[in-house]
Amino acid sequence: MKIIVDGMGGDNAPQEIVRGAAMAAHELAQLDPEITVGIIGPQELMLNCLRKENWDCSSAEKISDDVFRYGNIDIINATEVITNDEAPAMAVRKKKDSTIVKAMSLLKSGDADAFISAGSTGALLAGGLVTLGRIKGIRRPAIAAWFPKMHTGGTTLLLDCGANVEAKPEYIFQNGIMGAMYVEGVKGIDRPEVRLLNIGAEDSKGDELHKEAHRLLAGSNINFGGNIEGRDVATTDCEVVITDGFSGNIFLKGSEGVALAIMKQFKKKLREGLLAKMGAMMAYSKISELKEMFDYSDSGGAPILGLKGAVLKIHGNSKAIEVYYGVMKAIPYIRNNVTQMIADAVTQNSELFKTGDEE
Amino acid sequence: MKIIVDGMGGDNAPQEIVRGAAMAAHELAQLDPEITVGIIGPQELMLNCLRKENWDCSSAEKISDDVFRYGNIDIINATEVITNDEAPAMAVRKKKDSTIVKAMSLLKSGDADAFISAGSTGALLAGGLVTLGRIKGIRRPAIAAWFPKMHTGGTTLLLDCGANVEAKPEYIFQNGIMGAMYVEGVKGIDRPEVRLLNIGAEDSKGDELHKEAHRLLAGSNINFGGNIEGRDVATTDCEVVITDGFSGNIFLKGSEGVALAIMKQFKKKLREGLLAKMGAMMAYSKISELKEMFDYSDSGGAPILGLKGAVLKIHGNSKAIEVYYGVMKAIPYIRNNVTQMIADAVTQNSELFKTGDEE
Repeated sequence: MKIIVDGMGGDNAPQEIVRGAAMAAHELAQLDPEITVGIIGPQELMLNCLRKENWDCSSAEKISDDVFRYGNIDIINATEVITNDEAPAMAVRKKKDSTIVKAMSLLKSGDADAFISAGSTGALLAGGLVTLGRIKGIRRPAIAAWFPKMHTGGTTLLLDCGANVEAKPEYIFQNGIMGAMYVEGVKGIDRPEVRLLNIGAEDSKGDELHKEAHRLLAGSNINFGGNIEGRDVATTDCEVVITDGFSGNIFLKGSEGVALAIMKQFKKKLREGLLAKMGAMMAYSKISELKEMFDYSDSGGAPILGLKGAVLKIHGNSKAIEVYYGVMKAIPYIRNNVTQMIADAVTQNSELFKTGDEE
Repeated sequence: MKIIVDGMGGDNAPQEIVRGAAMAAHELAQLDPEITVGIIGPQELMLNCLRKENWDCSSAEKISDDVFRYGNIDIINATEVITNDEAPAMAVRKKKDSTIVKAMSLLKSGDADAFISAGSTGALLAGGLVTLGRIKGIRRPAIAAWFPKMHTGGTTLLLDCGANVEAKPEYIFQNGIMGAMYVEGVKGIDRPEVRLLNIGAEDSKGDELHKEAHRLLAGSNINFGGNIEGRDVATTDCEVVITDGFSGNIFLKGSEGVALAIMKQFKKKLREGLLAKMGAMMAYSKISELKEMFDYSDSGGAPILGLKGAVLKIHGNSKAIEVYYGVMKAIPYIRNNVTQMIADAVTQNSELFKTGDEE
């Protein structure tokens, strides 16, 4: 098994990324010597970063012209980088030797099993579509994100968070299939409950898009729990909440914005006046627990589901710890072959809607 | 000027509603004797409630068969009530003597200037459309809500919050006009900044619906500040955020859900352990200030904009104080003739899009 990390993706690349990859490789050397961690980027730069982490780089095993192995870390040479400022579709066509495009090629050829990047989401999506391709039967990939269960701890998978803004009922329905299979595969929850984000809880609510998606979901073999309103997502017991990419994005970012604004005000208020300051100090450990609720660093990142391979986007400001968890959480994704689970589930439910307009 | 309150709307009707109306009437008797507060509902019931508030009901002036005046309060007889469980469109057609339908008729005939209700939003919308009608040129009414500016205090107007789930670019554009005129009229802010809720800040972002709405807004005479992402709404300085009714509803309810869940967890955490409890007590006044940020009771309710009259929905669980503020905040709405301001602004911008498909 080989898990590749994008050495050039995100605000803290390359050193923090390489550090996280080395942390994971160090642990995996004990846990499972069959797993190799790949770091993709300009060879010399990657190697220098790796040396700074005190990784033994004294002897290299040449795997191919582009790949050199140091213990259980492979340095994979890729000379180009796609930045957040570039138009994704154009960039993935032009920069064939970029970390993202090259990693997608390695996934496609079977030379790698998962790719983790803190780089441009748009480029990951475009590179995934162009180079790696979709799972057979999947109309559109979707970006999934973990949303905190604020009443009990734990997380709910939310998708689509913005991969497809022009949605069709079939896309939303397939988000349900993909989300259910992913949670089943990585969390080991059998038949996780899926609900549809909508403007009302009753079956008849919503626009035509969501009404039709509801109909498809209700007729499928997934464990569909019906509609869920925006106000109930933060305290739901269900495992997967699905919607179209536009309202999913608005919901996710809106919630994040409100949570951040509240925490900021809260901090500010508790600094006003001696009594409040003392009170805050005394309540400090509890307040910290509250903050942990919004700490996503151990989530392992957001999978881009529907691609023919495991692609995980971690936050642009990820540090070593997020990279480490990204690698570790990719393992059950690969081991349980979630990609195949999705392909099988799509086939099982393919009778539900016409597949004539596949693009 | 006559402002009618729905004596039968909401969870706390009729007594709390009548109490709020009486509070407002009591104050208005001093402030402006030209303003009458109407309470609509079953005559005897309303009168009994009013007596319980120690209102002088000893002598009544008969205004019409259905209306009796007690000081500056009119009791308007309406024998039926539309509940939240009823299908709105059907209910407003059948229950001609309901508080909602009758109040809309009074607005239409000019016998009342504003209507405030804690009753069914769907019935207010349906009753407004069927009985009162739309402002000439307005395609669809929209429900507006006040959203807290969490960094500075104050509020941003958000619309549409769910009146129209099948949106067209023109509807979103007109939400911009209506929101701007409402804020200008009731807050006295000249040319308030309007922004479009979208999945990215750049002009090119979004689905076709929002891209086209962006184009219309940019070409209009309103003060359009471009797109705004979900995460920035809670801390925006702009006055109006517009979107389609589906994503507006998802955004508003999602934000409310997250805010409530955080506050609940926060309370819970601060009750765990003696130290945290003592700390919380010491920080209590500051924590209360934080809670006030989410206290909408003085907002005066959510206007249903685009109807040919001032209709304000207050929360279903409104108590007397919300009713009182509903009445008081309706005054500038009427005085500054926001309905006419909207009509004029729509006419000014009518060249921007074809009006052929008006329904």
